[in-house]
Amino acid sequence: MPSKEFNFIDRYFKAIGKNHPSTILGIGDDAAISTIDKNCSLVSCIDSLIEGRHFLKNTTPYAIGYKSVAVNLSDLAAMGAAPFAILLALNLPQKYANDAFLAPFAQGISDICQKFKIDLIGGDTTCADTLSINITALGYVPKNAFIGRNGAKLDDIICVTGKLGSASFALAQLLKNKSCTLENALHYPTARVDLGQKLRGFAHAMIDISDGLIQDLGHILSQSGERAKCDFGADIFLDKLPFDNALDILPKHKKYAHILGGGDDYELCVCLSAQSLQQFNRLYPNALYPIGKICAQNSIRYLDNNERVDLNISGFNHF
Amino acid sequence: MPSKEFNFIDRYFKAIGKNHPSTILGIGDDAAISTIDKNCSLVSCIDSLIEGRHFLKNTTPYAIGYKSVAVNLSDLAAMGAAPFAILLALNLPQKYANDAFLAPFAQGISDICQKFKIDLIGGDTTCADTLSINITALGYVPKNAFIGRNGAKLDDIICVTGKLGSASFALAQLLKNKSCTLENALHYPTARVDLGQKLRGFAHAMIDISDGLIQDLGHILSQSGERAKCDFGADIFLDKLPFDNALDILPKHKKYAHILGGGDDYELCVCLSAQSLQQFNRLYPNALYPIGKICAQNSIRYLDNNERVDLNISGFNHF
Repeated sequence: MPSKEFNFIDRYFKAIGKNHPSTILGIGDDAAISTIDKNCSLVSCIDSLIEGRHFLKNTTPYAIGYKSVAVNLSDLAAMGAAPFAILLALNLPQKYANDAFLAPFAQGISDICQKFKIDLIGGDTTCADTLSINITALGYVPKNAFIGRNGAKLDDIICVTGKLGSASFALAQLLKNKSCTLENALHYPTARVDLGQKLRGFAHAMIDISDGLIQDLGHILSQSGERAKCDFGADIFLDKLPFDNALDILPKHKKYAHILGGGDDYELCVCLSAQSLQQFNRLYPNALYPIGKICAQNSIRYLDNNERVDLNISGFNHF
Repeated sequence: MPSKEFNFIDRYFKAIGKNHPSTILGIGDDAAISTIDKNCSLVSCIDSLIEGRHFLKNTTPYAIGYKSVAVNLSDLAAMGAAPFAILLALNLPQKYANDAFLAPFAQGISDICQKFKIDLIGGDTTCADTLSINITALGYVPKNAFIGRNGAKLDDIICVTGKLGSASFALAQLLKNKSCTLENALHYPTARVDLGQKLRGFAHAMIDISDGLIQDLGHILSQSGERAKCDFGADIFLDKLPFDNALDILPKHKKYAHILGGGDDYELCVCLSAQSLQQFNRLYPNALYPIGKICAQNSIRYLDNNERVDLNISGFNHF
């Protein structure tokens, strides 16, 4: 491909422009330069989205661009961080090195960057056989005031920040060639960037739900248990789980497979004391859904209106 | 693949350990936490290495790991930055999800991290058809004291930091199934991290040579010319170019094709005033090779012992 394709791509991504005051130098040099406030820590993460694995082949380029950024911002949100920039390593098949793909793809990235007032400050585009979008997101928190995974305590209330299972249900419908009212949950996940920051000082532990609530909560349980040097488990109250009523067409076990084990929710799973939850609710009513409790047991138990229920749930696994 | 593969990978990359004091929280949470000195700016870049494109299929996993990091550190060096951390998005084919590949690959990353005292602070491993290694490198410079591409001035001396064309020549030999004494230049590029930092306050403009001297110098000329609002070109003194004498087996035009147009050098191309060069040479003798001069013309001219020579050189292009 002639080198003009590079200019072409460069043009799209440079055009995204500048949304955040920390950017001193963006795309166009060997590296980007950013200012970090002296009272802050840097927060960074990296995530890949690969065609046929993280999105279906017929997903729109706009949605691919948007979602690739959203999933990374969700990781920053789960630390309580404020994002300021992203870097993009685009592995691009020849068939996509054209206006039809790149214009809407860049627009999707641009729109979410503008929504969250962040900048695309670095990029590398390389020809590849498979479309792979690798994004690093950068953010900051007040010095060391991040919310990790390992701080949950016994009797903490487990909360989520929104409806679960919608993306997983939509994907299942699309795979059966059925349309679904919940497609937007799959394509345009809500990165809980504001809520994540508001939870600083309240949450003991936090994670974003990308591989299903149970698998991701499992990381909090194992890391917090390891830190506390005891077994950490959870009681999950099925009757408290928020989900879209479109899922009610499913038999119960399939419904809970989506809600508890489905990937791509990108809501936050938050552990905080009952007292902190009360305080948080007074400040930000209806932002958190309490759905369970941290217990001293080596398992996750499910309860439906206080009745023990057996469910066999596992999370999404990329391999 | 069972989820134990994840633990397996996790184990390799977590084992790389902690080399830099800025790392507060590394691999194992949603994002990493780093301290940035209050008098510094953050420097960040991202680069992909793809099998069959950036390295041959029979390259050792150790070399792939090492080089993937080196090329990113070279980008930071070209800004005058001190690196402190990297993040890795590994797109991994099933056939490489095993000890035989991952142990030496992680060792290559570990060795270069230890060499430069930096940390692997974030990672995402995803199953893919093609091996693609996407790395973000993070570093810092004293507040805004970076060396960009657009600061070159008329009459600046153009220098390079080492021999050119070795990697390109080695690759050409390997493609012909010939062994070559310069293979290490291809597999283990020297990221000029210390030299890049020493050049702060001396260099007007700097870039690392990844796509061939002429193409990369071209970025300095176009961006600096744009800033100065006039045409910037260069005279290149062929008799001053440093190269390994293994290249002397080639006819002249092929030799210069490697030296001036070959990729993967990862030396720095530096523009500075004659006076600054003199001062720098007194402090750090023999670190820079003066090979040309910035001129007010819209082209690159080649001179061999002051005689004009016609050469048709273009740089490496990934598409």
